[in-house]
Amino acid sequence: MTEKSDSVGIVEACDFVFGLTEDDYLPLDCGRKLGSVNIRYETYGKLDDNASNAVLLLHALSGDAHAAGYYSADDKKPGWWDEMVGPGKAFDTNRYFIVCSNVIGGCSGSTGPGSINPATGKAYGMDFPVITIADMVRAQYRLMRHLKIDQWLAVAGGSMGGMQALQWAVSYPDAVKGVIAIATSSKISPQSIAFNWVGREAIKNDPNWNNGDYGANVPRQGLSTARMLAHITYLSDESMLNKFGRSLQKSDKYSFDFDYDFAVESYLQYQGARFVDRFDANSYLYITRAIDYFDLSDEHGSLSGTFRHMKSDFMVISFSSDWLFPPYQSEHIVKALVENGINVTSCTLESSYGHDAFLLEVDALSRMTGDFLRNLQAGGNGQ
Amino acid sequence: MTEKSDSVGIVEACDFVFGLTEDDYLPLDCGRKLGSVNIRYETYGKLDDNASNAVLLLHALSGDAHAAGYYSADDKKPGWWDEMVGPGKAFDTNRYFIVCSNVIGGCSGSTGPGSINPATGKAYGMDFPVITIADMVRAQYRLMRHLKIDQWLAVAGGSMGGMQALQWAVSYPDAVKGVIAIATSSKISPQSIAFNWVGREAIKNDPNWNNGDYGANVPRQGLSTARMLAHITYLSDESMLNKFGRSLQKSDKYSFDFDYDFAVESYLQYQGARFVDRFDANSYLYITRAIDYFDLSDEHGSLSGTFRHMKSDFMVISFSSDWLFPPYQSEHIVKALVENGINVTSCTLESSYGHDAFLLEVDALSRMTGDFLRNLQAGGNGQ
Repeated sequence: MTEKSDSVGIVEACDFVFGLTEDDYLPLDCGRKLGSVNIRYETYGKLDDNASNAVLLLHALSGDAHAAGYYSADDKKPGWWDEMVGPGKAFDTNRYFIVCSNVIGGCSGSTGPGSINPATGKAYGMDFPVITIADMVRAQYRLMRHLKIDQWLAVAGGSMGGMQALQWAVSYPDAVKGVIAIATSSKISPQSIAFNWVGREAIKNDPNWNNGDYGANVPRQGLSTARMLAHITYLSDESMLNKFGRSLQKSDKYSFDFDYDFAVESYLQYQGARFVDRFDANSYLYITRAIDYFDLSDEHGSLSGTFRHMKSDFMVISFSSDWLFPPYQSEHIVKALVENGINVTSCTLESSYGHDAFLLEVDALSRMTGDFLRNLQAGGNGQ
Repeated sequence: MTEKSDSVGIVEACDFVFGLTEDDYLPLDCGRKLGSVNIRYETYGKLDDNASNAVLLLHALSGDAHAAGYYSADDKKPGWWDEMVGPGKAFDTNRYFIVCSNVIGGCSGSTGPGSINPATGKAYGMDFPVITIADMVRAQYRLMRHLKIDQWLAVAGGSMGGMQALQWAVSYPDAVKGVIAIATSSKISPQSIAFNWVGREAIKNDPNWNNGDYGANVPRQGLSTARMLAHITYLSDESMLNKFGRSLQKSDKYSFDFDYDFAVESYLQYQGARFVDRFDANSYLYITRAIDYFDLSDEHGSLSGTFRHMKSDFMVISFSSDWLFPPYQSEHIVKALVENGINVTSCTLESSYGHDAFLLEVDALSRMTGDFLRNLQAGGNGQ
């Protein structure tokens, strides 16, 4: 941990357990119910007396509850949105009570396919129910009630986190004052569904996967390949040209073999290997499936219909070079909001970073989200 | 076979063998030499008396020597560019003598990793030398001499076929009157190198791959996954939206499982399975590596320097929605040609088909290539 006045400092993860009796089980979109649910979460800042300053941060595919701060004095790696969360930062912990929880289906503390199935005493594996973005939000609602919060000042997230933010406003219109949806979509395109499919195929083809029942003998190669593929979609053609070009890694001449030769190949291999050390293959299957299935226009025929009874103010941000969640998908969201007379601030930020921009374009995001939150707290809307 | 007056009809593949003695071996860029080389090829039309009407077609990654016509009376599937090759078509077999050969490293008749290594009596597997685009062209040059042709009226191809066409003009400037380079690049971007890497990882992770020594027990799953991934890059976001949208395959409701559910998933699965029946996994490794290594600016510091001594006329065509070989890469080629005062006709055709447009936009391609070839034959350039 670096001593910094704008850090939330050393933080601790908490656990909230519910669903220990059948009447408290979590109903899921697939028709099944989930019992014995643990939600891993972290909080930063203080909830004010009338519980009006709470902000929920929602993480992306491979994120977790650790949005900010450090776990110990010698911890070198802060939370995933540390540049945005802290005293004086956009999610200002001097003003707001920040909550971030790991999604159900995940592998970083909340109940997921790697958790023990109380019915069998063994890990769920592929017996874990297929969950949706709405299911994730349903579980977060239980956490909200547990924390004695009636309404979030804002819910905010990028990528799959943005999907959850949108879903919050649809599922619980009274519980959300403002929505910050970054680099996200109301439904992903068939191209993205196809990439997710290929990533899952890579995992399922790994003999170690063993139909999801792998114990300690994890499908490293399959998960690594899935991650490498996904990683390409998080960058852009331009950012890869800038970062790697056609540079070679080991020599100035081609090695004429099939080991990594180009710098970009070495980088991918490193990213894949690093991911396997921190993420669970079955969770990867479940969470990508939840992303595939997310379609806000499903229930009401159109996105505009879905947004009809929403009460939140919105901020919708996309990035010019993001081809995984392209700006046109954000524009669809904005159009449907405007059709319903909902307050919306929107912007497509110029960036060469592709989808990863939602984690990298900190300055622009900080200004926009900081203003939006202060306006919400002042009682106005985000415009 | 459909009886059509514009078909070349029933065709036969031929084999040309060279390199049976050491002085005739094919020298390769990697420093090794290849002996006992077979080139599988087909010809359509007739070579004229002064051998001035020969056109060489160059295939893409998964193509072969069978560019046009049928193998039998009940053959339903014509060659891969049949719509472009035949009497009265762009590559008019009434006017031109058309040649198409399978690349070395391939798996459709020409010598590749699946061929028998004369030194061991067993299949080369991964003992096959890493070959380059220039090596492929070097082998085609031997075929040209065998066919008693001194100069091609034109060399033409899309994607990797376009790379070979460019390489022909660089390696053998006197042997090429015109170059037709479609949907191609003088060097692929790190994004494409990265996709090739992930595809190869999928193959190498398949336990059946066995370091390339798989006999009949082929790495189906790995090759299928590699093909599915590549297939996404051949389409475009727009064409996938048009073709599949988010349609489901089996029901109007989500199946909440990990089998194929979306139409696009079912399509990919089908494409993957079909590919494995006709293509060799080791060839996939070798040919994608050749594509990675292709860089026309390598030897002379810049593309313009490489093009300095070229004598051919050029036609360079790209497609607006092609993100695998984006229009800007064709523009780089055109710029370097113009800098050398070389005659070049170029166009970015509007198309939603992505990279696949080079096989699908037949009308526009036929007009442009037909005109270019007739001008070449008339002695002028393609402009």
